[in-house]
Amino acid sequence: MIEPSKSSNQPAVGISGRKIVYDEDGKPCRSCNTLLDFQLATGKVSSASSLPTTKKSDSNTASYAKVDPPDVEQLGRSSWNLLHSIAASYPKIPTTTQKGEMKQFMTIFSHVYPCTWCAKDFEKFVHDNAPRVDSREELSKWMCEAHNDVNRKLGKQTFDCNLWEKRWKDGWD
Amino acid sequence: MIEPSKSSNQPAVGISGRKIVYDEDGKPCRSCNTLLDFQLATGKVSSASSLPTTKKSDSNTASYAKVDPPDVEQLGRSSWNLLHSIAASYPKIPTTTQKGEMKQFMTIFSHVYPCTWCAKDFEKFVHDNAPRVDSREELSKWMCEAHNDVNRKLGKQTFDCNLWEKRWKDGWD
Repeated sequence: MIEPSKSSNQPAVGISGRKIVYDEDGKPCRSCNTLLDFQLATGKVSSASSLPTTKKSDSNTASYAKVDPPDVEQLGRSSWNLLHSIAASYPKIPTTTQKGEMKQFMTIFSHVYPCTWCAKDFEKFVHDNAPRVDSREELSKWMCEAHNDVNRKLGKQTFDCNLWEKRWKDGWD
Repeated sequence: MIEPSKSSNQPAVGISGRKIVYDEDGKPCRSCNTLLDFQLATGKVSSASSLPTTKKSDSNTASYAKVDPPDVEQLGRSSWNLLHSIAASYPKIPTTTQKGEMKQFMTIFSHVYPCTWCAKDFEKFVHDNAPRVDSREELSKWMCEAHNDVNRKLGKQTFDCNLWEKRWKDGWD
């Protein structure tokens, strides 16, 4: 694991009770911390104002047991969440091994994705547009273009790929 | 793409206007269809009662532009959605290539997952419990055990792995 490089005035432990994880540049890592812990580390909330409320464990239990499998749209949203986050946490200067693994990951992803027609479309995109794995920025923009390719096919609004860092790494404020 | 094998009384086109995708056993594929199309194909709704309402495209646009990156919990839910769905759509009798790719996928996943401490835990799980890739059922139960390993670490309720097919493939009714 990357050793946290927080500055001295940032909290070490979050409201969740877990150690807060910081990126190599000293920023708290969104994908490693709960939203509340992240907000604590960025000074958006204080620990006193954000104590968690009591969990309704009975209703949680009942709903957990009967949740249906995701449909194509839920699965799509989940998968883009993961893929863009993977790209946003990819090294700025990846090793040869990391570059090779990322290419393999995208190829295998296009073989195992559960929605068969989506998988075929993604496989074709990967074939026609080789994943750009030379840096975090390159990969994040490639992923954004892959997503926009799907957005266009579905008649959805495309995203400005220059904003990838706000949407998938740093947030908007 | 797998050629649909629907029975003659099942609809070919869904409420979305897209062709409905059926699995090799004739059941409509949840991860390939929208929930409404899936419900149409299973007789839960009729096309007349389920016309989509007008899209609020303006509010969609605004919310799309300012969504923050997922925190560790959103990312976790998204990733389990994808991983369990991948397992539930894995072949019942995979080829040697498919087995090899699935093992590689799990290993690379444990290297690229954005939450660094979660990734290390998953890497250790994969090391200590080699992915069981010999069939859909084996892989789905292995995935369920991986998820339960995390549930236990987080003090969450574990899931009965014998119910994987209801939770991640067929649904509860």
